[in-house]
Amino acid sequence: MSAEIRVALEPPYTVHVGRGRLALAGELARERPSVAVVTDGRVAALHGARLAALGDRPWIQVPRGEQAKTLAQVGVLLEELEAAGLDRRSLLVTFGGGSVSDLGGLAASLYMRGIDVLHCPTTLLAQVDAAVGGKTGVNLGPAKNLAGTFHQPIAVVADVDVLATLAEADWRSGLGEVVKSALLESPPSGAEPLLELLERSSEGLLRREAPVLEAVVERCVRHKAAVVAGDERESGARAGLNLGHTFAHALEAASGFALPHGVAVAVGLVLALECSRRVGLLEEPELAPRTVRLLSRLGLPSSLAALRTAEVPLEAAHIEAALRHDKKRAEGEPCFVLPRRRGAVALGVAVDPALVRSLLA
Amino acid sequence: MSAEIRVALEPPYTVHVGRGRLALAGELARERPSVAVVTDGRVAALHGARLAALGDRPWIQVPRGEQAKTLAQVGVLLEELEAAGLDRRSLLVTFGGGSVSDLGGLAASLYMRGIDVLHCPTTLLAQVDAAVGGKTGVNLGPAKNLAGTFHQPIAVVADVDVLATLAEADWRSGLGEVVKSALLESPPSGAEPLLELLERSSEGLLRREAPVLEAVVERCVRHKAAVVAGDERESGARAGLNLGHTFAHALEAASGFALPHGVAVAVGLVLALECSRRVGLLEEPELAPRTVRLLSRLGLPSSLAALRTAEVPLEAAHIEAALRHDKKRAEGEPCFVLPRRRGAVALGVAVDPALVRSLLA
Repeated sequence: MSAEIRVALEPPYTVHVGRGRLALAGELARERPSVAVVTDGRVAALHGARLAALGDRPWIQVPRGEQAKTLAQVGVLLEELEAAGLDRRSLLVTFGGGSVSDLGGLAASLYMRGIDVLHCPTTLLAQVDAAVGGKTGVNLGPAKNLAGTFHQPIAVVADVDVLATLAEADWRSGLGEVVKSALLESPPSGAEPLLELLERSSEGLLRREAPVLEAVVERCVRHKAAVVAGDERESGARAGLNLGHTFAHALEAASGFALPHGVAVAVGLVLALECSRRVGLLEEPELAPRTVRLLSRLGLPSSLAALRTAEVPLEAAHIEAALRHDKKRAEGEPCFVLPRRRGAVALGVAVDPALVRSLLA
Repeated sequence: MSAEIRVALEPPYTVHVGRGRLALAGELARERPSVAVVTDGRVAALHGARLAALGDRPWIQVPRGEQAKTLAQVGVLLEELEAAGLDRRSLLVTFGGGSVSDLGGLAASLYMRGIDVLHCPTTLLAQVDAAVGGKTGVNLGPAKNLAGTFHQPIAVVADVDVLATLAEADWRSGLGEVVKSALLESPPSGAEPLLELLERSSEGLLRREAPVLEAVVERCVRHKAAVVAGDERESGARAGLNLGHTFAHALEAASGFALPHGVAVAVGLVLALECSRRVGLLEEPELAPRTVRLLSRLGLPSSLAALRTAEVPLEAAHIEAALRHDKKRAEGEPCFVLPRRRGAVALGVAVDPALVRSLLA
């Protein structure tokens, strides 16, 4: 089973989800006079052969992980694209996790004021979230994704076969975003809600069984594609996708970006649910313990205490300081997306700093 | 006399040209919760008072000139915007020459994935060209504007009063782009061609008489606005605005960016005319000597020899190497915009490298 999900933007593009889909990259690049691949060393070593159909193209390696997302690294990448002779009709292929598509997407949007990009996400996180929707970005010091663009890809190829080799930490990181999607989505007509699908299939998912992966990635992408198509530039509904993310970004920053994004999101979801309950917005109180149970079954932390270690103490004061740097703030105060019930959130909620502090204690 | 020129993009915006127009900046910024001004030290010192209506806002200074257009400088600027507390609804005002609007425009397009920008160009070059049309950019080593975006301003305020204090070199630089506009434009119905207006008014222009400045800036902006509205992202006709620029960018790069842009454009125009004549595209041969005469009357160099000095030898091999870096190249060869007659150019012309070399001898 494989799926083609159309992202109804102008121009529209397709997200290809399924097994063995990376063979498509060669077709999508066929007409291009020049193509370069941006990847990281691990992905290139493990899965480079899956892009054999691209032929002999320059492969540009960037360092792994969130720490690589700097403006200086974008500069290095742009110089490599120049050295590789790319011009305005060239195609940049990103092949890696979210940091590779964020960095590569930003470089593509800047190079000669914008060249085409094809994302081939290789992590669960990137397949269900980062590579779909056109957001690119790098961090500025502790400020996550403070510099970036909206630059839609020509297509996304999410091949679930590559998820088999994901390191455990990266795998769990992706599950955090999957659970977020499950809290946000309204299921397609007649379909089982993703939240129930996850509860029912958590063991198969943890075993990374291909049919479960295909179903889960497809459902997450369908949800994101629908939201993004309605609000490309995040002037409204798209902000709902940030559920749990105001907390998560602050946790990541307070950890010096040592914390994997999706793991931070998992705890961010729990904090958002608790915050929503305390400010009286949570209409479906059962959603909080249900989320905690699902996170636990998926091997994810479900409390701030569970994240804190001697190396990463995540002090409340540091998290609060990072919250004040959030780019969703208004008038200097952070704004939160808070869940109301499954499939419904409140956007742009300003929360009493004392309440926030108590959540972080 | 003042003029309001509408740039018919989505959304449309207005270029305000005339005397005393900087008073408008306060009105345009009035509704904004936060505003910052990006400028350079000289402009701030000479003309800061003209933006008094903006009130007490953070002023961020960037170094002067083309050398300041680096990705590292964008990073510094973004960090300053962050420190100034700007959010997604903030307005960035650029107040300076083309390098300030190029840098500030790029920072505005990247900060939180894009905030609004208002350009208040203070040089002739920026008023007639750089600040209109939404191009932003920085140089990557010798590659001019290789990293940038399209990010349209909410408005442009071109106050000709500030041109009185322009240093002679900056003033002459702007005249190069004015002559380019005169070669490109088709005059509005019933109006005198800009080329004739310049020939007739060159003395008043050199004395920087306000009525002449208003008329010249308005006509250049009208021409650029019409071209940009028809081709925002330079997929076709907008490339005509690059007349003389493939040569000019190479000259600038070969000079280590010591050569003012518009001065390089002046010589670039002459090289393009001569190139066009030699490849048989120039249908109006009188246009070449006429351009040389006008450039001379405006105090601009009109030959490569006139640019060469002991400090800036502009060796042919260096110019050729820089041409191969041009971002308008296709398949590794530079592409030229060549004049056919006044108001008409040929786009994307590949020229025999031997012919190019002979032009640069």
